[in-house]
Amino acid sequence: MKKESTTLKKLATELGLSISTVSRALNDHPDISTTTKDKVKALALKLNYVPNIFAKGFRQHKTNIIGVIVPNVTHYFTTTILKGILEEASLLGYRVIISESNNDVVKQTEMLETMLQFNVDGILMSISKMTRNVDSILKIINNVPLILFDKSSNKIPCTQVVINEEESAFSAVEHLINIGKKRIAIIKETEFSYNSERRYAGYLRALNEYNLPVDEKIIITVEDISLIQGKRMANLLLSLKNRPDAIFTITDSSAVGVIQTLKKFNIKIPEEIAVVGFSNSRLSTIIEPNLTTIDQPGERIGATAVKYLVEEINNTSDQIISKNIEIKGTLIIRDSTFKA
Amino acid sequence: MKKESTTLKKLATELGLSISTVSRALNDHPDISTTTKDKVKALALKLNYVPNIFAKGFRQHKTNIIGVIVPNVTHYFTTTILKGILEEASLLGYRVIISESNNDVVKQTEMLETMLQFNVDGILMSISKMTRNVDSILKIINNVPLILFDKSSNKIPCTQVVINEEESAFSAVEHLINIGKKRIAIIKETEFSYNSERRYAGYLRALNEYNLPVDEKIIITVEDISLIQGKRMANLLLSLKNRPDAIFTITDSSAVGVIQTLKKFNIKIPEEIAVVGFSNSRLSTIIEPNLTTIDQPGERIGATAVKYLVEEINNTSDQIISKNIEIKGTLIIRDSTFKA
Repeated sequence: MKKESTTLKKLATELGLSISTVSRALNDHPDISTTTKDKVKALALKLNYVPNIFAKGFRQHKTNIIGVIVPNVTHYFTTTILKGILEEASLLGYRVIISESNNDVVKQTEMLETMLQFNVDGILMSISKMTRNVDSILKIINNVPLILFDKSSNKIPCTQVVINEEESAFSAVEHLINIGKKRIAIIKETEFSYNSERRYAGYLRALNEYNLPVDEKIIITVEDISLIQGKRMANLLLSLKNRPDAIFTITDSSAVGVIQTLKKFNIKIPEEIAVVGFSNSRLSTIIEPNLTTIDQPGERIGATAVKYLVEEINNTSDQIISKNIEIKGTLIIRDSTFKA
Repeated sequence: MKKESTTLKKLATELGLSISTVSRALNDHPDISTTTKDKVKALALKLNYVPNIFAKGFRQHKTNIIGVIVPNVTHYFTTTILKGILEEASLLGYRVIISESNNDVVKQTEMLETMLQFNVDGILMSISKMTRNVDSILKIINNVPLILFDKSSNKIPCTQVVINEEESAFSAVEHLINIGKKRIAIIKETEFSYNSERRYAGYLRALNEYNLPVDEKIIITVEDISLIQGKRMANLLLSLKNRPDAIFTITDSSAVGVIQTLKKFNIKIPEEIAVVGFSNSRLSTIIEPNLTTIDQPGERIGATAVKYLVEEINNTSDQIISKNIEIKGTLIIRDSTFKA
């Protein structure tokens, strides 16, 4: 997408008008004569600047559409956030269009630009795992209200709605320590995963606060965590000479894989090895033993993000205050750590 | 959205030009002078017909965007179809935007119109459960290629990609009969649910072909099928004097609810009561006993729908051939009907 400033400048030069006049003409400002407006609009159309005029010209007229960009639209926890977004948006009179970045930064930028072309009133985004350079996102903030949720970044100065990942992970590991576990393994993702890193920080803080040693042999890092990876990593942990007595794995799916593997080897859960997941997905009450996990209120995250976005959309002052909103996760204790 | 014909007619009347000239001017036809084009475009903008000009003017220029409308974006099976849509679209160079009708016909129409305003190249839709009047959908077909998938309707003359629901349900019930079951209950939705009705037809055909009586007492209809409803309806079936010896329930979620209730009452599965679900979701291999179900290839449905849509988008002939594509479901036999 071409930059707005280029558009206005080119039009202004060709017509011998000031940029401000061109801008006001395109926005149907009452101070500008109909003749000038017609001239500006005609040239704008002729030079194929239509999409930008459109975006700018209609920014005043609200479209009542919110654009949502997520890394993976089929991910369970994401669907719960989407549910919250869709319900709250509907209540507030907004339509929602959703797109996926597939954890691909190029696609993420494309979709941001598409949303701008569509002239959405605001954008909600959960950023791609691979986002190291945030320039394209910073550009967007100047054009349209943007709020990040779930997968966030401290490099982007905008309102963010996230779960208190670090504290939630801390409480999960603290619970394992409280039931007498001393050798707690973690299965996590690489340092490029925002949520994984914060959960890992909570794990380390808990070990540290309770004076338990940190052993790299039982800190397992995988590229993409999944049920299958949970199975594989449980196999790996079982093959160690000095096995863990608990496994904290940063998703419920991988926890299900861990439990299925432990059961296959007739390992008693939680007596021999306790298991804790993260997210309180539907799987957690279907697997036996039922899974201890962190309840992440996905719908509330989604609804909260919409509320703040609509506030920003309706904000007519020059001042924008970025807020950092943390929604609390809750430890749900079930049979995988505590015998009923 | 205003109708295209009104726009052109109004412009033509005001400018004293023919509709065809106005249309060609808006589409930058080489036969029309620049002066006329500028006049037409300026008036169009002035009269606030921009969105329609925009849609029409850019129809020639492809946007490479596919619009997807589904009843419920957080529904598990829908997410598997979305995965197939997103992957195939990406391979073929298309961006995808997704929206939800929330099974609300007014919202469905709104989203169809939004997609047209966005000038998408084509639309994939799974229709809302409550769609009895299809007029708004019929209008869309004249403007942009549309393909229906999963939740379809025979009132709409367009290509449809669905699973062979009736035959799949038949094979599920036939399997129950083959393992010796004679009193097979069904838990289904009301007659407004397309998929439910077709699965129910398969159930009836199987009973009929094998000369089993149809007993209305064990034909259970619920408004919105879910895990909780599965639990409730299992309780209801257990309270009957003449209990069923098998339950075919038209979703995996509800089957999980059924199994959890049967287990609570220590009923042997499958010896006393066998259970079959539908869709082969992740739950089906996590619940114990593992669930016999129909594998619905969601990703293939999504990918296939994209393929046919892109074919229609690129179709330059006057002829459009509507196809009815049935993707085969497969019966997956597990412990809930057959002891390992």
